[in-house]
Amino acid sequence: MVNSDLVLAALEAAAVLISAIAGMIVAANKGLDLVGAVALACVNAFGGGTVRDLLLDNRPFYWMSHWEYLVAIVAISVPFVYSAMAFRVATEVHRRAAKVDAIGLSLFTITGVGIALGRETPIVVALLMGVVTGTMGGVLRDVVVNEIPDLFQPGGLYATASLAGALAFVGALGYGLHYGEAAAAGIVLIVALRLISLRLGMTIPAPHWISNPPRDPP
Amino acid sequence: MVNSDLVLAALEAAAVLISAIAGMIVAANKGLDLVGAVALACVNAFGGGTVRDLLLDNRPFYWMSHWEYLVAIVAISVPFVYSAMAFRVATEVHRRAAKVDAIGLSLFTITGVGIALGRETPIVVALLMGVVTGTMGGVLRDVVVNEIPDLFQPGGLYATASLAGALAFVGALGYGLHYGEAAAAGIVLIVALRLISLRLGMTIPAPHWISNPPRDPP
Amino acid sequence: MVNSDLVLAALEAAAVLISAIAGMIVAANKGLDLVGAVALACVNAFGGGTVRDLLLDNRPFYWMSHWEYLVAIVAISVPFVYSAMAFRVATEVHRRAAKVDAIGLSLFTITGVGIALGRETPIVVALLMGVVTGTMGGVLRDVVVNEIPDLFQPGGLYATASLAGALAFVGALGYGLHYGEAAAAGIVLIVALRLISLRLGMTIPAPHWISNPPRDPP
Repeated sequence: MVNSDLVLAALEAAAVLISAIAGMIVAANKGLDLVGAVALACVNAFGGGTVRDLLLDNRPFYWMSHWEYLVAIVAISVPFVYSAMAFRVATEVHRRAAKVDAIGLSLFTITGVGIALGRETPIVVALLMGVVTGTMGGVLRDVVVNEIPDLFQPGGLYATASLAGALAFVGALGYGLHYGEAAAAGIVLIVALRLISLRLGMTIPAPHWISNPPRDPP
Repeated sequence: MVNSDLVLAALEAAAVLISAIAGMIVAANKGLDLVGAVALACVNAFGGGTVRDLLLDNRPFYWMSHWEYLVAIVAISVPFVYSAMAFRVATEVHRRAAKVDAIGLSLFTITGVGIALGRETPIVVALLMGVVTGTMGGVLRDVVVNEIPDLFQPGGLYATASLAGALAFVGALGYGLHYGEAAAAGIVLIVALRLISLRLGMTIPAPHWISNPPRDPP
Repeated sequence: MVNSDLVLAALEAAAVLISAIAGMIVAANKGLDLVGAVALACVNAFGGGTVRDLLLDNRPFYWMSHWEYLVAIVAISVPFVYSAMAFRVATEVHRRAAKVDAIGLSLFTITGVGIALGRETPIVVALLMGVVTGTMGGVLRDVVVNEIPDLFQPGGLYATASLAGALAFVGALGYGLHYGEAAAAGIVLIVALRLISLRLGMTIPAPHWISNPPRDPP
């Protein structure tokens, strides 16, 4: 008999840690030190949920009630920073973890929508909170290291996949599905859209200013 | 008979949307995509009020109780991003909208001071909250796209106009004027200072380090 | 008879103002104006405590209940920005104030841990809040002026000293020392580690990617 709560918890843990490792990899690419690696790992893994909880006045933060993740991130960061072999293993795990990353995006999104709905925000706000939860960690990570956020530039479907799944979840609830079924629909849609977009190189259409820059910049 | 509440609401709506379009124009200049255009529009339009409300612990946020603006911003962003003609119209509207922008600065500032005073903060803090409400959206927008904030660099009066109007508002309240009269005084002063400074190229005096950079950077 | 509360208050005031001047110096190096100097002074001096209080939902903020500091910062910033002589004095004071800066790091750290413990956060979170209080102002300052945070790059012990002192404080409390004694232990350790690391050029070990950059950036 499969315990679905356990599976969900394991997927969540994997998504958090893969997200933390992705933050560490950015720190390495920028030549930061151990402090920077831990900081970017935390920002990437917990930034989205923390912004959501600040906006919804929702406490305690995930990383406060699950502080074991803070310990785990420090424990992973030390070999990552000081052992070239551990670093290679971690980057290789991350490279192969597109599915885990997509699952993380979907879990964070649906959790965010659910928390917002629980606080009786308007539906538009709940959708936005889902996307914020799923994507804001990466935005903050990029801002901290002085890059224009990846999320805002042409690439695979990410915010779009998150929004589509949030809509599917809310729509399914509206049609009377049970919470768990509606959540599953949203999660499957996000994972599918994200992975298909990566496989096929799909993006949202490029703005007219990409192919045809304005002559007089406003 | 003119309904002043209606006029105020219309001015506020115009200011929010012009501010959102200004964010989209920055996104275009940076080569971002639809997601970036929507994000910068929201940050530019709602960032100042959101920071104020986080600092004052004031809920719900403006964009939560006026979530129709979120829908409007998405609805405007699509033609802006995908139609070169809509883009030209929007940038032209924005270019001619210095007055609306100045009215936005004034409304956001006075609203911010009023909310802070309603929470019985010290007057110095209320003045600061006014300036934060009026200016912080642009600061966040610049930080997100990796630019040193315009606000912190020599240019037309902006933070200064906001602060002067906040002082006028608080001072008029102290002299016993009614709330609406005092607010009007602050609003008129901010709009006048901002527009006059743009017309005449007025700025606050330049620091000594602009004309005379230190030889030994500290 | 020495009044230790008075000494502590004087040290705290000195630390806040030195931290504000450090922010102004960054503004000067970046060619910002008076508005930028005041903003960076506030961010550098109050950013860490403000982030901590947002995360712990702790009000009022330090700068709201001690709004005299806001007035003092504006009063200092005007001569700093407009008088080359006052600027030289301030930068010279700052250059010689490494001890005050170290004391500030220690006071802010221990205060942060104390506030978190008072809110019954897990110990790991309290340690993190100490480091955040001590270091986040500088991180925000760097992000605003578009630099990768100093804190995340190889240099003298800073976050590490802060964490060590936070650990000493919590450990001493755990061993049954009185609050004041435990705080003193943490403060002394942070100041000592910081000043010794500056004197001897000590840093935490450099990551493997500094001496030996990966050939295939992940």
